[in-house]
Amino acid sequence: MEFSSKLIESAVANFSRLPGIGQKTALRLVLHLLKQEEDFTQDLSKALVDMRLNIKYCKECHNISDDDICNICSNTVRDQSIICLVEDTRDVLAIENTSQYNGLYHVLGGIISPIEGIGPDDLTIDSLINRISNPESEVKEIILGLSPTMEGDTTAFYITKKVKPFGIKTSTIARGIPIGGELEYADEITLGRSIVTRTAYSIED
Amino acid sequence: MEFSSKLIESAVANFSRLPGIGQKTALRLVLHLLKQEEDFTQDLSKALVDMRLNIKYCKECHNISDDDICNICSNTVRDQSIICLVEDTRDVLAIENTSQYNGLYHVLGGIISPIEGIGPDDLTIDSLINRISNPESEVKEIILGLSPTMEGDTTAFYITKKVKPFGIKTSTIARGIPIGGELEYADEITLGRSIVTRTAYSIED
Repeated sequence: MEFSSKLIESAVANFSRLPGIGQKTALRLVLHLLKQEEDFTQDLSKALVDMRLNIKYCKECHNISDDDICNICSNTVRDQSIICLVEDTRDVLAIENTSQYNGLYHVLGGIISPIEGIGPDDLTIDSLINRISNPESEVKEIILGLSPTMEGDTTAFYITKKVKPFGIKTSTIARGIPIGGELEYADEITLGRSIVTRTAYSIED
Repeated sequence: MEFSSKLIESAVANFSRLPGIGQKTALRLVLHLLKQEEDFTQDLSKALVDMRLNIKYCKECHNISDDDICNICSNTVRDQSIICLVEDTRDVLAIENTSQYNGLYHVLGGIISPIEGIGPDDLTIDSLINRISNPESEVKEIILGLSPTMEGDTTAFYITKKVKPFGIKTSTIARGIPIGGELEYADEITLGRSIVTRTAYSIED
């Protein structure tokens, strides 16, 4: 696309470097900015730069945080005996939104993926080992909250082996038919596993 | 969604004010920015603010421009006798990309829409009348390059009436079955009109 303005061209080029935003969407966003007050664009730019330059990562769990220790790790009301291992910050948010979990987290920062050149050393696995080997650690269980993909399973396997010597229990989030999902549309592997790993069902009298 | 960081929260809130970007997409973009170098975010922010503060609108055609007169209006090679009237800058880009048009443009800045409270005075219609009533004007034809919607047709009708006293020919872009489109999937109105407004077809011997 050729633009009559270098300013537009540069704004569109920068926007379309973001994932999922192509040239057409970028142009739509730029034209939207032009229709709004100048403050709108200045607020957006300031929020992005502020965020990028000032964000910290929690020294305990590596989740994004405004302080050195995030507000989950520093919350003494939470269960200190259980750590949920997740790939990235989005997973923490997703689990927090369920209100079903009251333990701590550990953000890996990715999963082992030879194809993308991500090995165990690129993740925060050493930091996890430090956490659980600390004499003051109360951790008794690690939940492997990773996606049920080949990379996720590889990572889970690797970490389970690493954690074993510390005598800590590992568990994985349940795989099965999503609630509200229909059996006939479930893939064979999920359906097969969900029969093998069926759970007890009883009706209270 | 609750974020563990005010910085993330503010960045997500600002991103999700853009059209077509919800909270989940905004978060994905923010996390992407965090994975890139700081320069990436700073370049994006600078490009957006530069664009917003320094962009001009061409005094002739109201297209966005880096100068007082855009590079289409100031291009003397282009046909000065024909103006294509369009709703916004995106339409100019779309038509320019076809390489089929060598005349000038006039960007209305919207279309007449009583529901959205946009009347003729909110558009650049007066400026168009000034352009064609200028004694030095060479304009002989105005192409109504508006979308074939009710609002577009209303606007086309209004402008045709306004332009009539100046003895300038008005035309509209052809409506019909899109090239590559299949007859059976065309809506009745388009198909009906495309039969009424059929064009001559002959094979050169």
